[in-house]
Amino acid sequence: MKPIDMAKEGAEVSEETEHMIEKNGGKEPESVMPGGDAKEMRAVVLTGFGGLNKLRVTKKAMPEPQEGEVKIRVKACGLNFLDLMVRQGNIDNPPKTPLIPGFECSGIVEAMGGNTKGFEIGDRVMAFVNYNAWAEVVCTPLEFVYKIPDEMTFPEAAAFPMNFVAAYMMLFEVANLHEGMSVLVHSAGGGVGQAVAQLCSTIPNVTVFGTASPFKHEAIKDSVTHLFDRNADYVQEVKKISPDGVDIVLDCLCGENTGKGLGLLKPLGTYILYGSSNMVTGETKSFFSFAKSWWQVEKVNPIKLYEENKVIAGFSLLNLLFKQGRSGLVKTVVQKLFSLYEQKKVKPVVDSLWAVEEVKEAMQRIHDRGNIGKLILDVEKSPIPLVGKLISLKAEIGKTRIAKRENVGGAKIYIYIFLMNHLITNVIT
Amino acid sequence: MKPIDMAKEGAEVSEETEHMIEKNGGKEPESVMPGGDAKEMRAVVLTGFGGLNKLRVTKKAMPEPQEGEVKIRVKACGLNFLDLMVRQGNIDNPPKTPLIPGFECSGIVEAMGGNTKGFEIGDRVMAFVNYNAWAEVVCTPLEFVYKIPDEMTFPEAAAFPMNFVAAYMMLFEVANLHEGMSVLVHSAGGGVGQAVAQLCSTIPNVTVFGTASPFKHEAIKDSVTHLFDRNADYVQEVKKISPDGVDIVLDCLCGENTGKGLGLLKPLGTYILYGSSNMVTGETKSFFSFAKSWWQVEKVNPIKLYEENKVIAGFSLLNLLFKQGRSGLVKTVVQKLFSLYEQKKVKPVVDSLWAVEEVKEAMQRIHDRGNIGKLILDVEKSPIPLVGKLISLKAEIGKTRIAKRENVGGAKIYIYIFLMNHLITNVIT
Repeated sequence: MKPIDMAKEGAEVSEETEHMIEKNGGKEPESVMPGGDAKEMRAVVLTGFGGLNKLRVTKKAMPEPQEGEVKIRVKACGLNFLDLMVRQGNIDNPPKTPLIPGFECSGIVEAMGGNTKGFEIGDRVMAFVNYNAWAEVVCTPLEFVYKIPDEMTFPEAAAFPMNFVAAYMMLFEVANLHEGMSVLVHSAGGGVGQAVAQLCSTIPNVTVFGTASPFKHEAIKDSVTHLFDRNADYVQEVKKISPDGVDIVLDCLCGENTGKGLGLLKPLGTYILYGSSNMVTGETKSFFSFAKSWWQVEKVNPIKLYEENKVIAGFSLLNLLFKQGRSGLVKTVVQKLFSLYEQKKVKPVVDSLWAVEEVKEAMQRIHDRGNIGKLILDVEKSPIPLVGKLISLKAEIGKTRIAKRENVGGAKIYIYIFLMNHLITNVIT
Repeated sequence: MKPIDMAKEGAEVSEETEHMIEKNGGKEPESVMPGGDAKEMRAVVLTGFGGLNKLRVTKKAMPEPQEGEVKIRVKACGLNFLDLMVRQGNIDNPPKTPLIPGFECSGIVEAMGGNTKGFEIGDRVMAFVNYNAWAEVVCTPLEFVYKIPDEMTFPEAAAFPMNFVAAYMMLFEVANLHEGMSVLVHSAGGGVGQAVAQLCSTIPNVTVFGTASPFKHEAIKDSVTHLFDRNADYVQEVKKISPDGVDIVLDCLCGENTGKGLGLLKPLGTYILYGSSNMVTGETKSFFSFAKSWWQVEKVNPIKLYEENKVIAGFSLLNLLFKQGRSGLVKTVVQKLFSLYEQKKVKPVVDSLWAVEEVKEAMQRIHDRGNIGKLILDVEKSPIPLVGKLISLKAEIGKTRIAKRENVGGAKIYIYIFLMNHLITNVIT
């Protein structure tokens, strides 16, 4: 992470909150005991689109399961880059605020509506949710709920749905990964990147090219065949090793990377766009960023694909589930992945666990691409006091600085900005 | 075929030949006996890009195999829509004329260059050739030559490479056809269309939607689940039967059909462009038709693919073989296809056999989309005298007229145009 970027982003935090909510929420939440007949629950609420200051932890009415729904006492929630884009309103057709963010969680079945055969109270489950995951309790249709293997922990189960299902479907349903192929994945240290690397290792002789920030290389070097600095010219780096290019490119960046990715494909190769994290620059939405990316992304001429024998695909797991009704297909994929988990061929990499009240710091970490694997909101965890945070932060900055050989001045600026951020977002507002 | 189009196209035949060649060729060719040490062979020569009048049958120097090449005494050649586009110069980077057209043939190995292990004189083979197939003898690198099953006839073997390999690779390598899927194919009565229909029938419960001229429907109705008039609004017709759309669209038309095809895809569906026959309107190249199609074809926004979970691909078998060096992959596909042939699961549909001297009529037939299955040049066949042609033509027009319920006047115009065409292209020039 660059201290200089942090300074710029820190400045944006002072932006005013547009939608104000319950002022009693967020600071010292009262815990709601599981299993009771409580009328309220704690949840992360996004009060409007924007910076970190749009997030609150507050009490919301307890949801009750409708026909075909399962009520889950949430233990852990997954945090994705997409949640950051949602916070900024940096998505197509954003929903109305206030809303509870979050698309995946794990927990225990606490109640069911009618027609929920196959589930019982007490079942350990993971689930996709169309928003609302970052809460103590969530209700979701049973088609999006899966009983988890006994040996799978709740943080692992919360790290599983979005990343492993997407990685599996892209590699095996959209592309056709098989022995001897090569794959390029950006953000190799992230949740999807690590899932891709693990799934590739289940097929003989697959070469994985990955890009990641240099400070992550030591930690992930065993999962990826060839690692490049995310700021390097990865096209040239790949071509040095494989002049013919690669069979599969998985791109979560978008923009100019589409043309680069297509250019790197071997004949019959497949480029898959599954995100557009390049749209996110600062902490708040950049001006016109969604519209800009729509127009700036290079359009593809089908005749060029014909001449070059290439395939371009887009993959959005959430649209597939919640707009396009493909939960049946996803269920079969989840079963295959559980089987791989039980054979110890895949295992979610959890970067860190965060208390619900620490959601802002967790989001900042994913924004700065500081994570290796998945960030998890642990619903039962208490926030670390500020002093503890500073100690662990200082240690991390030390590591980062050594890894990146950055100057001490930069690190100092970072600590200053972090403190200001913390004061502004957690204390003053 | 529409009589009115024929009239327009007939008019274009009078266009002057730009490149003149041996005037002794074409009318009464002397047969060259196989196996001898003849210095010459007969071949179809394209003297320049344009109409049917650019085609001659003439003598060319006997080719001799270079290192790694196999010399084949040709028995039969396949005729493809692409040959028509080549004749018009309606392709990207057209080669120089004069040239011998043709990309596929079958025959008997007559000699080999060095390093051609695995082949012997007398082997029955089929081959891809990078032009030059429409001749009595052809030499091609052994990587493009395949020994054929004993029970496969030479016309079948000449009908096999371009259509079945393309159909197989599109369905199983680019898309991922499996049980229960649906496929839309244009020109269902053509060579590729019939190969696609047969290959789909090897997978349980695959629904094939096809477009074809109405007069073909009776002949091909058993090979396709749902048949539509090629001039009908196939998007609406498909949606009536399958409101969700289809899993795979195979498009050889291009232009506005790309947008229509993408629109018809189910989530995770694949649209494959494998030709652009819409570029061909008249008998000669239309003004700027290649450039026009390049610019007019709808460009595809990757973000739209992302939102809709769709895949778009291009497939050019010739580029794959001759520009992109994928003959090894094609060889494995050919072996799988031979296995299906031996199990009697696929069998090339041969529309008609034509003498080499009848290449113009054969080309006109493919232009008019009159064929059901593959047109074959039978190198050992003698041309049918004009009277015989007229008799068979009249019979066919009768059938067509009944099938299409066209008026007798139209059929009369057609006979008139055919006669004029024949006189101009075979007698006068």
